[in-house]
Amino acid sequence: MISYETSQNMISLLSIGNLRSERVFLSEALGRILAEDIVADEDYPTHPTSAMDGYAIVHSDLEALASLEILGDNPAGADHVDTVMSGVCIKTFTGSLMPKGSDTLIPIENVHVEESRIVIDKSVPLGFAVRPVGESYREGEVLIAQGTKIGFAQIGVLAGINRVMVRVAQRPRVAIIATGSEILDIGEKELHPGQIRSSNSYTLQALVDSLGGESVQMGIVGDDKHAIMERFEEALHSSDIVVSTGGVSVGDYDFVKHIVPKLGAEVIFKGVNIKPGQHVMIAQRGSKFIVSLPGFAYSSTVTFILYAAPLMARMMGIENPYEVIEATLKVRFSKRSNKSEFTACNLKFEDGRYWVDFDGKKSGSSAILTNLLGDAGLMICGEEDGDLDAGTLVRVIKL
Amino acid sequence: MISYETSQNMISLLSIGNLRSERVFLSEALGRILAEDIVADEDYPTHPTSAMDGYAIVHSDLEALASLEILGDNPAGADHVDTVMSGVCIKTFTGSLMPKGSDTLIPIENVHVEESRIVIDKSVPLGFAVRPVGESYREGEVLIAQGTKIGFAQIGVLAGINRVMVRVAQRPRVAIIATGSEILDIGEKELHPGQIRSSNSYTLQALVDSLGGESVQMGIVGDDKHAIMERFEEALHSSDIVVSTGGVSVGDYDFVKHIVPKLGAEVIFKGVNIKPGQHVMIAQRGSKFIVSLPGFAYSSTVTFILYAAPLMARMMGIENPYEVIEATLKVRFSKRSNKSEFTACNLKFEDGRYWVDFDGKKSGSSAILTNLLGDAGLMICGEEDGDLDAGTLVRVIKL
Repeated sequence: MISYETSQNMISLLSIGNLRSERVFLSEALGRILAEDIVADEDYPTHPTSAMDGYAIVHSDLEALASLEILGDNPAGADHVDTVMSGVCIKTFTGSLMPKGSDTLIPIENVHVEESRIVIDKSVPLGFAVRPVGESYREGEVLIAQGTKIGFAQIGVLAGINRVMVRVAQRPRVAIIATGSEILDIGEKELHPGQIRSSNSYTLQALVDSLGGESVQMGIVGDDKHAIMERFEEALHSSDIVVSTGGVSVGDYDFVKHIVPKLGAEVIFKGVNIKPGQHVMIAQRGSKFIVSLPGFAYSSTVTFILYAAPLMARMMGIENPYEVIEATLKVRFSKRSNKSEFTACNLKFEDGRYWVDFDGKKSGSSAILTNLLGDAGLMICGEEDGDLDAGTLVRVIKL
Repeated sequence: MISYETSQNMISLLSIGNLRSERVFLSEALGRILAEDIVADEDYPTHPTSAMDGYAIVHSDLEALASLEILGDNPAGADHVDTVMSGVCIKTFTGSLMPKGSDTLIPIENVHVEESRIVIDKSVPLGFAVRPVGESYREGEVLIAQGTKIGFAQIGVLAGINRVMVRVAQRPRVAIIATGSEILDIGEKELHPGQIRSSNSYTLQALVDSLGGESVQMGIVGDDKHAIMERFEEALHSSDIVVSTGGVSVGDYDFVKHIVPKLGAEVIFKGVNIKPGQHVMIAQRGSKFIVSLPGFAYSSTVTFILYAAPLMARMMGIENPYEVIEATLKVRFSKRSNKSEFTACNLKFEDGRYWVDFDGKKSGSSAILTNLLGDAGLMICGEEDGDLDAGTLVRVIKL
């Protein structure tokens, strides 16, 4: 068995091929990963612009003259604007271009109007309330870098530079196969108590969707070599990554581990010194990957996060699918094995730091998916770690 | 002008009406807000279940007998299973029900097989590798509480209890109106430099979508009283919240602030001692809300987050739309006003805490939306705060 660190290195060294991108409408871009640098093609604003409601003036008039004649109005969006010279001003509103000749905006609150003239009550410095050319950005500036996840601010900036179409990373297609004769699909009638309701397929589909992939739900296949083989072939043809659950352990009906090599796939590794999920297997066939996870709900979820999520992230050109943060143990933690352990924990931010505890978490088998409910994280303990005292700084995968 | 704290209290006291919910298929539930408690209707597992591959035995045989006869096979999902008695064992796999009479599973790795018998090489304690009834949860246990955002773990747990349909909060419908004669929509041809490309509509639409609302894009309307009034009426009829940008300041063309009361809406407040966005106005007409934001891109985004987002959250039955965390200032911060200030900052998690700096952030007008790009947060300074030294603990809205 290889170590967790070795397995992660091997994943990061896999040849993924070139980033595949597509052009989408801005309305479809939220949450996608940018596949190009967004570069400003002009200074913004392009012209000096008013930042308040007031009067555009020549600043030197403020000391020289007691009042200024109002030459006219300059509403935002106006096509033609008169020129300001010494002795006159133009009423100018937020978002309006500054009239030619003016260099300063004196706010409405700083003057009073007498007939057709303004009288200055309170002076302002040169250039006051004028947005200079390039205040927001300069031509050639990289506004948003490739690999950025597009959120609301990116959408706004893209709209502001009139980008209707955006190049984003294609969503990796991830096919999900649940194996096991005991598994009963959601909605299906239970015939006897030996059956287990499927959750893996749906947990993993939700993970794929959350991470920005496109899930292909291949359904459940029983412990039948021929049927499993066929389902894998179908999945390989319709996806970039095939994720399966079950069939990788040491039981007589664990067929997946034998079938994957027979599909012509090269096994990258099988077995990692981790808990849960030590039987995880990664294989590659051409440009496609097979990630075979254990069958228990908690094991399959954790190993998906550790192995399938980074593959998906690499295909989209992003470095890390999850944030790993440092947190402080609130209680003593008893390590149960000499493996790298990934333990569901509560992750709370209080008094300026993250804290880890296990209140309400059940210990038992790797079947307990409910431990991932709530504000859960995955606490990482290294192979060589022993029990950890309260107060220890630990690394936690933020879910 | 009221204080920021007063404005937030007034928002939290607004009468929102009963939570409106709908039933959706599990496949549509990811990211939605649960509108019911999810309660386990049985113990899980319902029967003692094997957690490994091995042999189901009577534990007392481990000391009493040197070997046990293999009575047969118990694959996962089997309908009928024989009974284990003293002297015999049944080969039992991960996920299989434990055969009647057995109390312990001895793993494959702990025995060797001689003809039709197993010989114990290494003993295990009573109950080893058996998932007891209710290991994951007990009948009547609240698995997921109302108000929870449905993520991958919730999806898996819901599938595991065979929940096809889930009651979730309805998405609040939020209509977005951008006002201003200077605003040019995305894709439209620029006719003269006085026009400004629209970004507010799209920033706010992305915020509505990200927060789980349903956006209704009402487009741009020029500074025309009649047209603005008509557009607001249309928006009120097709949404729960109308969000507008522009027209609330002190300029001659700021019509929105005059029109909202004429729509028969009660103004809850107009003007808050905040920077940016002091002219923000909140009004209510029947069960509907009008949130009129300033026109500058940074101002409208921040005030949406401060005022529209909490209204949306309350309509979905969740307490806070955003996390407010404590972070440490890396540099001295110069406060610019005696208002509550919301300053775009970089938020980085290093050495176990969040740090705030302003590298690459531009100071200038409230038009600079690009300051919200990157790992940005909104640093909150109170009215009474002065300049803040490096090392000060500040509160930051995590975006």
